[in-house]
Amino acid sequence: MNGVLETEKQGVSLEDLKNKMADFAKERDWDQFHSPRNLLLALVGEMGELSEIFQWKGEVPRGLPDWKEEEKQHLGEELSDVLLYLVRLSDICGVDLGKAALRKLDLNAKKYPVMLCKGSSTKHNQLSEKQ
Amino acid sequence: MNGVLETEKQGVSLEDLKNKMADFAKERDWDQFHSPRNLLLALVGEMGELSEIFQWKGEVPRGLPDWKEEEKQHLGEELSDVLLYLVRLSDICGVDLGKAALRKLDLNAKKYPVMLCKGSSTKHNQLSEKQ
Amino acid sequence: MNGVLETEKQGVSLEDLKNKMADFAKERDWDQFHSPRNLLLALVGEMGELSEIFQWKGEVPRGLPDWKEEEKQHLGEELSDVLLYLVRLSDICGVDLGKAALRKLDLNAKKYPVMLCKGSSTKHNQLSEKQ
Amino acid sequence: MNGVLETEKQGVSLEDLKNKMADFAKERDWDQFHSPRNLLLALVGEMGELSEIFQWKGEVPRGLPDWKEEEKQHLGEELSDVLLYLVRLSDICGVDLGKAALRKLDLNAKKYPVMLCKGSSTKHNQLSEKQ
Repeated sequence: MNGVLETEKQGVSLEDLKNKMADFAKERDWDQFHSPRNLLLALVGEMGELSEIFQWKGEVPRGLPDWKEEEKQHLGEELSDVLLYLVRLSDICGVDLGKAALRKLDLNAKKYPVMLCKGSSTKHNQLSEKQ
Repeated sequence: MNGVLETEKQGVSLEDLKNKMADFAKERDWDQFHSPRNLLLALVGEMGELSEIFQWKGEVPRGLPDWKEEEKQHLGEELSDVLLYLVRLSDICGVDLGKAALRKLDLNAKKYPVMLCKGSSTKHNQLSEKQ
Repeated sequence: MNGVLETEKQGVSLEDLKNKMADFAKERDWDQFHSPRNLLLALVGEMGELSEIFQWKGEVPRGLPDWKEEEKQHLGEELSDVLLYLVRLSDICGVDLGKAALRKLDLNAKKYPVMLCKGSSTKHNQLSEKQ
Repeated sequence: MNGVLETEKQGVSLEDLKNKMADFAKERDWDQFHSPRNLLLALVGEMGELSEIFQWKGEVPRGLPDWKEEEKQHLGEELSDVLLYLVRLSDICGVDLGKAALRKLDLNAKKYPVMLCKGSSTKHNQLSEKQ
């Protein structure tokens, strides 16, 4: 099976993004700026840009049916910026983000048992507050 | 090659996390709460919890050498919460986050050419502001 | 005219909150923790808590007519936490927040002339993006 | 005593900013866009812009002695944007922000008694986590 098909089948991995980000910074000699708190603030900055896309729109339906292609592409870029800084911050802190995410999914499954949580907004709210 | 080794080799994919999040919400009948702006605000909430971990610490060195195991695990959980809501928000908006991230990496490589950016904090700052 | 009536008439001033926050920190010997970036991250943390209040609610009408008194009080506390850290951050950075805000209001009035902006959502969006 | 001196003495009040923001929106017919969650997301957007100012700087000393006048003015503008949207959000939600802030200061004084908290970073951290 060749590489392209493999990637197509497996999807993009966090490991791969981590390596690409590390190479990117190294090539530009930017490691010196990538301290944990610098990256954290950069991440907050990108969250702000993501929020700005949604700020004057009121509630928008799933799938964003009325958005122009250009707006969706812009959204994809801001979502990516958040992801890329998150991956980089995790790497710089020495956290394996993929493993941590799988572990958190397990914790969430225990914290929110299907039988207890199913379909109830009230429960969802209360449980979320304890999160 | 068995599944575990395969995952070990490939790392955790965004596609996989997306599917796990979708199953998680479906099982609990939580799709009704997962509108784009609800998820966006949940993401902002998790960014806040991530920031709280770093808030009174002053600058911290890479790799967090002085942090207790417990603190690192907590950090991993908050980084994961940000990731999981980001993956879910992308899915609900109809954005393929993995593809978008690879595309953004390409755009960044063009925006910040190695020759122009290498090692200069001043340039890094200025270029970042235009980002 | 006595002090209470004066305050009642004038409202709460930013100067007053700044002084109260400075006294609060000084009494507890917390100035050592109140560096600009520590306070900024604390502010982001509070923004997260504020967002959590609204995260699973969908769009809510002005005045929050359906909220319980307890929920409104919680909201008041989170809005205050954001304000108090913002006031403190400004003080520690040497910015006179009240003067800066009046100046920004003037800048906004020039940037968004009534004749150009009135009632148009499209213009509001476009102008906001340039903000 | 004339108005200017009075303002000079009292400082800028939250009540005053609230009224100015309400007039600003009314004149431009922007009340239609100022729903609670729209304003909350706008506030998050401004928090992001504020964070961007500090993102690549590493720890900065109090008073920002090395910043150019232009940078300090930019900082004042972003701090003001956060404040102005916070004031507007509070107004639209029916929260008296000044009163809420004074009340929160009282709550904080009870939560962090001077005798218990004085000078201890450990206690400060632990108490903050419970905040």
